[in-house]
Amino acid sequence: MSDQPKTRLYVDSPLAEGQAVGLDHERAHFLRHVLRLDKGDAVAVFNGKDGEWLAEIDGFGKGWCSLTVTAQRRVQADGPDLWLLFAPIKRGRIDFVAEKATEMGVSRLWPVFTRRTDPNRVNTDRLRANAIEAAEQSERLTVPELSDPVPLEKALAGWPEGRTLYLCAEAGNVRPIADAVRETGRGPAAFLIGPEGGFAQSELDEICKLPSVVPVGLGPRILRADTAVVAALACWQALSGDWTAEGGDTRPPFRSPADPAGPAV
Amino acid sequence: MSDQPKTRLYVDSPLAEGQAVGLDHERAHFLRHVLRLDKGDAVAVFNGKDGEWLAEIDGFGKGWCSLTVTAQRRVQADGPDLWLLFAPIKRGRIDFVAEKATEMGVSRLWPVFTRRTDPNRVNTDRLRANAIEAAEQSERLTVPELSDPVPLEKALAGWPEGRTLYLCAEAGNVRPIADAVRETGRGPAAFLIGPEGGFAQSELDEICKLPSVVPVGLGPRILRADTAVVAALACWQALSGDWTAEGGDTRPPFRSPADPAGPAV
Repeated sequence: MSDQPKTRLYVDSPLAEGQAVGLDHERAHFLRHVLRLDKGDAVAVFNGKDGEWLAEIDGFGKGWCSLTVTAQRRVQADGPDLWLLFAPIKRGRIDFVAEKATEMGVSRLWPVFTRRTDPNRVNTDRLRANAIEAAEQSERLTVPELSDPVPLEKALAGWPEGRTLYLCAEAGNVRPIADAVRETGRGPAAFLIGPEGGFAQSELDEICKLPSVVPVGLGPRILRADTAVVAALACWQALSGDWTAEGGDTRPPFRSPADPAGPAV
Repeated sequence: MSDQPKTRLYVDSPLAEGQAVGLDHERAHFLRHVLRLDKGDAVAVFNGKDGEWLAEIDGFGKGWCSLTVTAQRRVQADGPDLWLLFAPIKRGRIDFVAEKATEMGVSRLWPVFTRRTDPNRVNTDRLRANAIEAAEQSERLTVPELSDPVPLEKALAGWPEGRTLYLCAEAGNVRPIADAVRETGRGPAAFLIGPEGGFAQSELDEICKLPSVVPVGLGPRILRADTAVVAALACWQALSGDWTAEGGDTRPPFRSPADPAGPAV
């Protein structure tokens, strides 16, 4: 058996030394037939609550795989308190939004229907699958919460006091995002990204009445909604989130400067 | 005839009042059969040199369309001097890199082969088509230059003095990107994003010997190469590029605060 995990999986089970974990058909197939792993091989597992653990493959059966949790690899750490409210966009691009927002560290994904939102339904199972895959691949210890899609006005009606809502707007009176984030400072935050067709003007006027709203600009070019998601979240993480020195260096230990053997883009 | 352009096209021809512009089969088909435009309808055109112009459709023929340029809409303005060096990645994700980097305002796209780069060829025609489409859609006045793919060491060998090369690295001794960009200040810049498999350690050591190189970190999560492209460029634009107040508000006049009728995400 090797201790270097061959892959990283999100699981539902509690994680502690000696705990048994069962994997469903799809995961079992992936480990056995795609990664060609065998009894005794190590994988990493996390459940969003108990940190990251090494686990050893006990064996495969018809449509299942069982693991035994062996040792903790990282203690649980939660990321920044950062929500993304986004208007559903067409398939392909919405998968991308779930994937990228997860990589960018959002804690909550919240689809909201705006006046010009084109799709009127959201496949939340699919969004969740994309978020889980991105959490596994990006070495997050959590999976973002996926909230039920609601009309935008409903989301805004109960807006929590003290949570800044950065409105990404391409027109009108906006402030450069870096200035706005720096001046607002740390604290719970959310970003609102509209649909490809933009917000209706009357809708923008309504949103801007909320005291927590800070309209921000993302430069002189028109960005697609999926681009705006990554760009806006990157600016926030770099200036106010966990990409800063003050945000705490929460890189996994095997990627810290002391061990330069880890992966690097 | 309406003066509100129905679409925005990149063309090769010189642009000036009264100038005739011919469109090829694909463009003619798009205007006539997809957008259902007709003689007298207005479109916007730009060529990367002469600003943006309104043009009127003169007529369609079998496989062609001719336009007459009528009035200038925006004067030419070049974006920041910002290069992106990137390791080719698989199809789909590389299309995405060309599209997103163009939206993010890079002036030069330069595919470089690193040791762990998987595809050993690049379809530059396809990259260019993606960049043109993104330039049209994002309302850029230029299309990024697409340089011939070369091995990374060749690109570094002739590195121009005074151009900062931000190396996006997931491991090792890096500085938070916001700190690094702020301290380096304005001036010609470039970003280097590695392949999905990361850089080889020996390769990283070589790159870091260059005096212009500044290794930067993009937070605690592992980002896919295509995510890292948008995230890194967003931070630079927001702190040192044309997303800042000092970078000059180069938003098209129809999207300035005086005219809130423009589109908005």
